[in-house]
Amino acid sequence: MFKVSNPVGHALTDPEVPTPAFLIDEAKLMRNLERAKAKAKALGVTLRPHLKTHKSIEIARRQMVSPEGPATVSTVTEARYFAEHGVKDLIYAVGIAPYKLAQIEAIRATGCDLKIILDNVAAAKAVSDYCRDHQTTIPVLIEVDCDGHRSGIQPKSDLLLEVAGALTTGATLVGVLTHAGASYDVENLAVIREAAVNERDGIVLAANRLREAGYDIRIVSVGSTPTMVYAEDETGVTEMRAGVYAMGDLFMMNLGVVKMDDIAGSVLATVIGHQPDKGQVIVDAGWLAMSRDRGTARQHCDFGYGLVCGVDGQPLRGCDIRMTGANQEHGIIEAVAGDRLKPEDFPVGMRLRVLPNHACPTAAPYEKLLLVGDDGCVKVALEHVRGW
Amino acid sequence: MFKVSNPVGHALTDPEVPTPAFLIDEAKLMRNLERAKAKAKALGVTLRPHLKTHKSIEIARRQMVSPEGPATVSTVTEARYFAEHGVKDLIYAVGIAPYKLAQIEAIRATGCDLKIILDNVAAAKAVSDYCRDHQTTIPVLIEVDCDGHRSGIQPKSDLLLEVAGALTTGATLVGVLTHAGASYDVENLAVIREAAVNERDGIVLAANRLREAGYDIRIVSVGSTPTMVYAEDETGVTEMRAGVYAMGDLFMMNLGVVKMDDIAGSVLATVIGHQPDKGQVIVDAGWLAMSRDRGTARQHCDFGYGLVCGVDGQPLRGCDIRMTGANQEHGIIEAVAGDRLKPEDFPVGMRLRVLPNHACPTAAPYEKLLLVGDDGCVKVALEHVRGW
Repeated sequence: MFKVSNPVGHALTDPEVPTPAFLIDEAKLMRNLERAKAKAKALGVTLRPHLKTHKSIEIARRQMVSPEGPATVSTVTEARYFAEHGVKDLIYAVGIAPYKLAQIEAIRATGCDLKIILDNVAAAKAVSDYCRDHQTTIPVLIEVDCDGHRSGIQPKSDLLLEVAGALTTGATLVGVLTHAGASYDVENLAVIREAAVNERDGIVLAANRLREAGYDIRIVSVGSTPTMVYAEDETGVTEMRAGVYAMGDLFMMNLGVVKMDDIAGSVLATVIGHQPDKGQVIVDAGWLAMSRDRGTARQHCDFGYGLVCGVDGQPLRGCDIRMTGANQEHGIIEAVAGDRLKPEDFPVGMRLRVLPNHACPTAAPYEKLLLVGDDGCVKVALEHVRGW
Repeated sequence: MFKVSNPVGHALTDPEVPTPAFLIDEAKLMRNLERAKAKAKALGVTLRPHLKTHKSIEIARRQMVSPEGPATVSTVTEARYFAEHGVKDLIYAVGIAPYKLAQIEAIRATGCDLKIILDNVAAAKAVSDYCRDHQTTIPVLIEVDCDGHRSGIQPKSDLLLEVAGALTTGATLVGVLTHAGASYDVENLAVIREAAVNERDGIVLAANRLREAGYDIRIVSVGSTPTMVYAEDETGVTEMRAGVYAMGDLFMMNLGVVKMDDIAGSVLATVIGHQPDKGQVIVDAGWLAMSRDRGTARQHCDFGYGLVCGVDGQPLRGCDIRMTGANQEHGIIEAVAGDRLKPEDFPVGMRLRVLPNHACPTAAPYEKLLLVGDDGCVKVALEHVRGW
């Protein structure tokens, strides 16, 4: 009924590129992806990137060491999508809900070696029962808690062996997995380095305790973007998972994990008005476009809902211009230092790029992710998977 | 390649209903919709519901006074979707970005009377130029700022007449519109009642100033859920817009605008593990499922990422159990008063319903919204529009 314009080949100021739009700077993306590959190689571990940040097969293919994986996902829907697109080695890295096992089996039946994780006896029994009843095999990793961040079993806990013991029939223990989520909490590189050591020590201890009990632990998996960047020695670890490094964001920049110039994801917005008395510029990207994530509010530099750049991606006026407020589809932009913004400097129709606090929730709602080439034009409108 | 199960007809504990899922209690929804219709009728104004909360035509048809409208939308994509589904009277209630005028014209050409808003001379000139160049008509409302909340022109400002004067050729001034957004800020019903009076007084003043200058102001539009609920006299106003009232949420409950039992939207989640030492229950709904909206953090009762209910929708243990933490696909549930949660009371596989802080961002990412009937089963999987 209506023709929706195709942004491919257009400059970011062309009307064919809609606003709000999620942009990915291709050169920065590729640099981030290559850096992670090199880091994993230098550490002697396999890179198993977490695809939840972008959920796009085209980015995944650039990010993974092969088109078939390995990779990590955070939902069954992502697992299904990436399996449909040829990825053959996946870990679904959220503790399994037993009712999802039929879906896991269906995805495995297509030839994808999809593995699951769990951290309790009830889930281990449920997987064992399922495998027995359906005469099938499902590879399992036990989730280990290295820092009290969230889920998982502490490396020294007796529960580790109890859970391993509850895996029977086709529920096959293949490894252990941990996530140093607490590495996000402190803006101190020494603490992040320590978190990487601690993550490694915890998972290796868990793996060795299981091996001593006779289990064949082939996968020893760690991962978080901060610990990946600052890890110096991963002896005993077999693979590394990380996700947000692909795009970077203001939160990771505050943490010292990426540089401003590494932030590949941004939101394109159009100026729709002003409140001259308040020095405010209003744009058509609000919290649905930027996400409600205010992660930088608890860091040394609060970027509001985002840092405002010109359409070329360069921050305006030394990082002083930020989206300080937002409604569903309105963003309020102000200078946090120096002179108030003047309407004549931000005319109605002008386009801006806004760097997000957190790439993962910001990219999630967009139908397409627009890859921007060196010429400043949209090169590809990338499909990705949304929802559950 | 994979068969995705159909939840329709299933109980919320059946494996055919996926988690996380966004549920809407049909009885509560219908009661909320009827209450708003009755309120608008009692005040003698037209109800023009804002459809951005759910973005679903099937809910819209129950919410609007006729299948053809009127209604309000917050994006051009919503306008296109609702026009395709037969809605004939829409206001796109975000200041127009001039490049969007071609899309507005295309939607209008299908027979939908889509109106736009603006608050500055540059946009007024751009619309006038567009209408002249394309020999077309676009109805325009001037946005009025009644409370310093966001965008719009102050009712007494000279700018009001300047903007009206800049509308020429087919850019036809048909009304004025305001939104008492500041009514969200104070948990005090007297202040909300005052906000309703102020919203009315501001918009009527603006309308009358324009009429005195010779303009035919047919639409005098106000709206916000709090002021709709507490308005007592809308003399001079022709229509009322509100959105979140359809579903309600914890933020509106804290504000005193809806009751716990009016909250129609919730997120269904499955228990995937525990941290027994901390008294925590882990579920498979994190901040992508609940949204990053932490609106209640600045109110008298902070519900974290949501209030935990049984699968019947009743809050557990007197509202003491909340989602206190979240990662992308993990929710951490704790008791904020009384005894710690025990794993045996929340076994792996158990399902819970979590009431959100804010219905609009929570519902947005789901592919379908599941309408739950009186029998506790999924009655319809509602389509809705996502993205931009």
